Amino acid sequence: MVNINTYLKEKQALIDTALKDHLPHEGTRPAILHEAMRYTVLAGGKRIRPALCLATAEALGTDAVNVLKPAIAIELLHSSTLIHDDLPCMDDDDLRRGNQTCHVKYGAANAILTGDALMILSFQVLAENGDPRLALELSQAAGSQGVIGGQVEDLAAEGSEPSADLIDFIHRNKTAVLIRAAVRIGALAAGANKAELVNFSVFGENIGLAFQIVDDVLDETSTDEVLGKPTGSDRDANKMTYPAVYGMEKAKETVRDLTNDALIALDSINADTEVLKAIALYLVNREN
Amino acid sequence: MVNINTYLKEKQALIDTALKDHLPHEGTRPAILHEAMRYTVLAGGKRIRPALCLATAEALGTDAVNVLKPAIAIELLHSSTLIHDDLPCMDDDDLRRGNQTCHVKYGAANAILTGDALMILSFQVLAENGDPRLALELSQAAGSQGVIGGQVEDLAAEGSEPSADLIDFIHRNKTAVLIRAAVRIGALAAGANKAELVNFSVFGENIGLAFQIVDDVLDETSTDEVLGKPTGSDRDANKMTYPAVYGMEKAKETVRDLTNDALIALDSINADTEVLKAIALYLVNREN
Repeated sequence: MVNINTYLKEKQALIDTALKDHLPHEGTRPAILHEAMRYTVLAGGKRIRPALCLATAEALGTDAVNVLKPAIAIELLHSSTLIHDDLPCMDDDDLRRGNQTCHVKYGAANAILTGDALMILSFQVLAENGDPRLALELSQAAGSQGVIGGQVEDLAAEGSEPSADLIDFIHRNKTAVLIRAAVRIGALAAGANKAELVNFSVFGENIGLAFQIVDDVLDETSTDEVLGKPTGSDRDANKMTYPAVYGMEKAKETVRDLTNDALIALDSINADTEVLKAIALYLVNREN
Repeated sequence: MVNINTYLKEKQALIDTALKDHLPHEGTRPAILHEAMRYTVLAGGKRIRPALCLATAEALGTDAVNVLKPAIAIELLHSSTLIHDDLPCMDDDDLRRGNQTCHVKYGAANAILTGDALMILSFQVLAENGDPRLALELSQAAGSQGVIGGQVEDLAAEGSEPSADLIDFIHRNKTAVLIRAAVRIGALAAGANKAELVNFSVFGENIGLAFQIVDDVLDETSTDEVLGKPTGSDRDANKMTYPAVYGMEKAKETVRDLTNDALIALDSINADTEVLKAIALYLVNREN
């Protein structure tokens, strides 16, 4: 039986070290840009996406250190989108993980450019790694028909009537597609065959969507102390959420169904998927 | 003797067709994002960077159609940085090539996300193309120690004392590095050897820097009608320029020196570099 907290802490340390190594030093010109890049990326976080990438590669017998570059590329991309999402003209968030957001500390112009630089660094790290299939995977997941497209619809949906079609589009694109890509990139890097890839995709998409619905649920049901940020912030910002569209009970039921389907997909793969299952359960049973 | 205007028009048509083919259709969800991407990229422009990429590959005997993907990737990246540079919190420009800038037409949030989507699409097109060396080249040129770094220093320099060190950093990073990359990507894609790459790099960097100094000079000496935008806009925006630091005569002399060195570098390469020479002379002798 794997201790998932210990496993994730170990991987987090590995990922943080690799991120530190690949981000330019703070003294590198322009110093303020490199300081802002390091400030944002190294502020902590559970590193769920790169951990999923590493765990998937390990499930197929590939050592985590051989997949570190693709794994941190995913985290760099994710960080870049968070900086832009937090901007005053978007979600206008002042705090993230208890720290001032990038634009509060460095100004909006530098924050936009810091996000740009991290996005480009993400593809630089993938190019250093070499396999163009991984860059293709990340770019398709992150671009106008993935994360960025999801954020456009999320902003446009603020204050509009709850809609099943819209919340599905937003959650799949803004969150699930990148988590699926993290799993698929780990699988591709470890030489997965087509059948394995299909099942890993189902696993990744389902836990990605479940992860976002859990986020929505916690925003309504948790306390400020446990969550580390104000509960009800989605409602206050007129964000469309899964419970707002379907109700709380249906939201929780959907999380259970998605998780079950994710675990069934893993069972079809001839690999040691115990850790991936444990991560899936960790993600849906978390309290913050 | 090559007719450079005809040559550039032909290549422009080839590049525009490829851009149209690689940008998602306007009906693709989210429609506003894909409309904004197409609006910005397809608004025209001389396509100097991709044309240099194609001309370099052709000089080494490779057909332009075989280098179209890398060429348009450079233009997509360039377009993404223009959208972000034009934002109110940066250069605050309302017009580009006579059209409303992206944020004026679609709002700041959508403009930021349109830039992001184009940046990611640029690396998607390179990943489809396959050779990771080209993505490495573009990411290094565009990132925190290239174009983005140059823009950070450019913004920070507004209103400060003219400085040779600073204007050199800004112009090399904001402009010359990407033009050098366009040439190098064409050379790499066409199988250039190390010695050829070194000379193509000198050529690209020199004409890139000359190109930007000519921009600065025209901003002071041209008329609104010829330039297609208000002259003196750099001065009005407190931008640091080459003539402001060195004076007009020295600026023009530097353009001549850089161009000469660029042409000498080409003469060291065993390739048909007539077109590249003509492009270099076109860039420094242009009137807008």
